[in-house]
Amino acid sequence: MIKNVAVRLALIVAAAFAPPMAAFAEGPSKNVHEPTYAADGRLIPPTDYREWIFLSSGLDMSYNEKALASAQPVFDNVFVNPEAYRAFLQTGTWPDKTQFVLEVRSSTSKGSINHRGHFQNGDIKGVEVHVKDVTRFDGGWAFFDVEGSAPAAKLPMTAACYACHRDHAAVDTTFVQFYPTLLPLAREHATLSTSYLKDEAELAKAVH
Amino acid sequence: MIKNVAVRLALIVAAAFAPPMAAFAEGPSKNVHEPTYAADGRLIPPTDYREWIFLSSGLDMSYNEKALASAQPVFDNVFVNPEAYRAFLQTGTWPDKTQFVLEVRSSTSKGSINHRGHFQNGDIKGVEVHVKDVTRFDGGWAFFDVEGSAPAAKLPMTAACYACHRDHAAVDTTFVQFYPTLLPLAREHATLSTSYLKDEAELAKAVH
Repeated sequence: MIKNVAVRLALIVAAAFAPPMAAFAEGPSKNVHEPTYAADGRLIPPTDYREWIFLSSGLDMSYNEKALASAQPVFDNVFVNPEAYRAFLQTGTWPDKTQFVLEVRSSTSKGSINHRGHFQNGDIKGVEVHVKDVTRFDGGWAFFDVEGSAPAAKLPMTAACYACHRDHAAVDTTFVQFYPTLLPLAREHATLSTSYLKDEAELAKAVH
Repeated sequence: MIKNVAVRLALIVAAAFAPPMAAFAEGPSKNVHEPTYAADGRLIPPTDYREWIFLSSGLDMSYNEKALASAQPVFDNVFVNPEAYRAFLQTGTWPDKTQFVLEVRSSTSKGSINHRGHFQNGDIKGVEVHVKDVTRFDGGWAFFDVEGSAPAAKLPMTAACYACHRDHAAVDTTFVQFYPTLLPLAREHATLSTSYLKDEAELAKAVH
């Protein structure tokens, strides 16, 4: 009798203190950065993306062959949620519920002790979110133009981004070719798209 | 007697399952990204810095007034360990054991579908680490030029970085003026350095 009461009490107390089982379980961790939506289906933009994994930053990029250099070039900072990043490290692919954030920030040339080139200043010129949610979106991914924390409607399929990402993205519909820490991994895992490999081969021929 | 045995057993079992007290305690979490050193005092460089907090990226920056634009401009990606970042959000200051990493990466202009501006490619041109360790270093901070995971010796105090950081850094010895998400916080917390405020005022006068 004594033993039973003691054991029962011990188990109750232990259960009260035990950390969630997920902390001990093997397998993928829960994605706390899954996309969330308002009741009407609009995306609730992630606001903590600056604490996610930085993939790269470019300056004054344009996919338009005739583009001239900007007088006011902007930086494009790209982040992805940590869970998706860790999955990519293992597989070279993006899991469902991946969220990319492209933050467009204006640049300053002369400021403080800087005399050349460009650094980023406080003006955010735009934020776009690219979400993988395979049961929700045709084609599995959707683009959103966001402003602060206001819910954002999915950009229509006619928006230029969809076709360009579909036709030229190195992995799935993402421009891994511009993310220097990820491109080699995609190559190792053989997850580079056929269209990207074709573009890459043509560019190499053009150079040689 | 029964009660005592039961309670004692319960406490033993609870202690076995209880998460570390730090998880419940108020105050700063343990810094798992503290700087570590070899037996001879050289810094063991952090190799997971790409998973830290991204502060900003600049292109072709130079502090030299006469600097001409580079033919091969490089990007400077700056990261700080997450614990230091969270402390800065609260206080506008850097705690002891902060580690900054400056990763210098070469750029490509024409590549894939890009026709203008610059994006980052796979070539790391250099990595520098800036460490705050107040009981170890004169002045509290030290700079290191690192290569991969090889232990690195502290740069001598005569290296140009020390004086420039001391004389122009916006917060402590760090160039927060180039980190757009942090500069407003430092202003709010009134932790901007006197020398930076002076530089800023002079630049404003020069413009007007």
